[in-house]
Amino acid sequence: MNVSEQLSEKQCREMERQYGVLSYGVNTIIPNMELKEKIAKSIQTGMPLKVKLGLDPTAPDVHIGHTVVLNKLKQFQQFGHTIQLIIGDFTGKIGDPTGKASARKALTDEEVRHNAKTYFEQFGKVLDMNAVELHYNSKWLSKIDFAEVLKLAGSVTVARMLERNDFHNRYEANKPIYLHEFFYPVMQGYDSYILGSDIELGGTDQEFNVLFGRQIQEQFGHEKQVVLLLPLIEGLDGVEKMSKSKNNYIGIDENPNDIFGKTMSIPDSLIIKYFELASNLSIEEVAEIKENLQKEELHPRDAKLRLAFSFVEMLYDRNTALQSKEHFLTVFQKKKMPADIPEVVWTKSKSIAIVELVKELNLLPSKSEVRKMIQNGGIRINQNKISDPHMVITIEEGMILQVGKRKFVKLTTG
Amino acid sequence: MNVSEQLSEKQCREMERQYGVLSYGVNTIIPNMELKEKIAKSIQTGMPLKVKLGLDPTAPDVHIGHTVVLNKLKQFQQFGHTIQLIIGDFTGKIGDPTGKASARKALTDEEVRHNAKTYFEQFGKVLDMNAVELHYNSKWLSKIDFAEVLKLAGSVTVARMLERNDFHNRYEANKPIYLHEFFYPVMQGYDSYILGSDIELGGTDQEFNVLFGRQIQEQFGHEKQVVLLLPLIEGLDGVEKMSKSKNNYIGIDENPNDIFGKTMSIPDSLIIKYFELASNLSIEEVAEIKENLQKEELHPRDAKLRLAFSFVEMLYDRNTALQSKEHFLTVFQKKKMPADIPEVVWTKSKSIAIVELVKELNLLPSKSEVRKMIQNGGIRINQNKISDPHMVITIEEGMILQVGKRKFVKLTTG
Repeated sequence: MNVSEQLSEKQCREMERQYGVLSYGVNTIIPNMELKEKIAKSIQTGMPLKVKLGLDPTAPDVHIGHTVVLNKLKQFQQFGHTIQLIIGDFTGKIGDPTGKASARKALTDEEVRHNAKTYFEQFGKVLDMNAVELHYNSKWLSKIDFAEVLKLAGSVTVARMLERNDFHNRYEANKPIYLHEFFYPVMQGYDSYILGSDIELGGTDQEFNVLFGRQIQEQFGHEKQVVLLLPLIEGLDGVEKMSKSKNNYIGIDENPNDIFGKTMSIPDSLIIKYFELASNLSIEEVAEIKENLQKEELHPRDAKLRLAFSFVEMLYDRNTALQSKEHFLTVFQKKKMPADIPEVVWTKSKSIAIVELVKELNLLPSKSEVRKMIQNGGIRINQNKISDPHMVITIEEGMILQVGKRKFVKLTTG
Repeated sequence: MNVSEQLSEKQCREMERQYGVLSYGVNTIIPNMELKEKIAKSIQTGMPLKVKLGLDPTAPDVHIGHTVVLNKLKQFQQFGHTIQLIIGDFTGKIGDPTGKASARKALTDEEVRHNAKTYFEQFGKVLDMNAVELHYNSKWLSKIDFAEVLKLAGSVTVARMLERNDFHNRYEANKPIYLHEFFYPVMQGYDSYILGSDIELGGTDQEFNVLFGRQIQEQFGHEKQVVLLLPLIEGLDGVEKMSKSKNNYIGIDENPNDIFGKTMSIPDSLIIKYFELASNLSIEEVAEIKENLQKEELHPRDAKLRLAFSFVEMLYDRNTALQSKEHFLTVFQKKKMPADIPEVVWTKSKSIAIVELVKELNLLPSKSEVRKMIQNGGIRINQNKISDPHMVITIEEGMILQVGKRKFVKLTTG
């Protein structure tokens, strides 16, 4: 008999309550019914569930796309379950052994700790880090010997590995797949076995790797984890998956005004998805916003103001969120300049090409970017649009230079 | 400049002499020119070459097919080079981790040592075992950790592995290949790196595995071994590769009369091949036999007598070879019975079915085999052919029972 059938009526309601919250917004639960069983067992025994999230030690830049999984972890925390964060430092510390010219350099212990600390600080904006376990998988993976590796490998077929999308595509395209790459999912699965994880979270692109934990746990005769795959959210462009490399992201430790402004720039089509997945509003609040948008009782711009506010409140606090909103409304909506423009003391030549000036102040990464911005009408001096990319200007005390919508600099001649 | 170009004229002649002998009868040398370089370097430095042969610890039954490689090793020995025999006990001791019902049981240390001893004894019939190094690869393979395994795996592509014939065929046929199987060639290659082997010998069916040593040695920045692939010889049937499982073999520790008789039974088409590959006759002697056969100055039967004699002489001694030849000529050619028929004291019922009698004396493995032999006219009592498989005979003092061509028993009633 299943544990869920042995619960009292009260326990059963608690199970359904947790299941309702924890399954909300999840793309896929594998297998769905086992999640209820895990929750039921936890309620019956009073033992919290162990909820695992694996992290790449090389890329600690956390953006609002990650809050999808962080908010889900937070829900688990709020029900008293235990979060297991795994820093995958084992492979990070041995580097990429692939016989390529661009072999990845091994991270030092110090770099790994530093990156873990960065995760910890940034995750702390959403999670209660006092109730989080932090693990480094080199602790156990570095101790496995060849015989143990062969045993692990003995449960895995090559065909199964080549089913994984990226492996399959590379194989078909005659691009090399190195044998050690087959071990990444195996190691990830081994982590779940060692930590006795009940649940593992991942993005939908992690399905193959995360499911491996079930196989390895079973191989060792352990209870299999349940896998929760969370949707990936598109970035500010509304097209590509949010990522740092695409430069379509909202960083979790960006300054509040940037978070606010970037959120206001998303396409209307993403509003509900961001509310549902990345914000920490309750299911009921999101449902209400959705309904009001559909009835056209809520303007998309006002919905975005609410969303941007909620992001800053989640990552900073209510007061900061209020200030960011005020800043945004001042600069963008009233087309006025903000009150807190940073001042720069200009000591170089007072006669300078506009392209040089903007580049010199590091407001744009290259001169060609400056010229493009001028063509788009994005550069102003004292609110006057610059239209000639060859223009030479004379620096005057208190001159205000505006680049794009959000960058302002006041020049003083010292 | 190549070492071979730096040799004195005398050294150069010695290099050519060794190369001539060592390359004789070899199917493939990879790469051919490097073998000369290895020999040249050995002559110049006075350092013997390290010549490796890997052995499966589970199957110590050595047959005359193995003398192809043993004779080649002996030639290396005769030039003063060092033989490295590797017992592949590492995988043998961990067993087959494959998740199959028929998982291979791990060998104990004792079994491994026993099998190694059997190899040693049987190889001793051809090689000078005092000048042979014996290695167990568990010594180093058991100490490799996961990080080292990943480094090894990082130089190997999945596509390369799937080029191996049996892997390729299984993959195409959707039969499982387990990931650990990919490590067998890798481990074999690692052995060559650890032992600094200059040469590795193997059958033509071992090409893929043996070549791996070059890759692993190169990965560690070591000089690559040269691979000598030796032809596989067909068994007594002239069709299938000689092997114990096909029962078409001449065992290296069979009794001299059986070795002699079995050799006489090979098809004429194999005579030269056996001389060239399995016997220890010199290149010149074999060439002469070949010429005489072609000119029909030598009868194939006489060539076989010479071959059979050489096998027994190689595996026992000249005297035993003379006796075996005498035995064979007596029994088979003069159709008379041999002088040394073993006697068995018969104490059971004197009236017995012929089928029971032959089975009882363990002359054939089963009653159905006895019946088949009777149908083929292969059973005689006092030289009279038995034709009725149901015949009941009466045992008489001194009665001679003949089963097949070579088995004779004299019954005494005690």
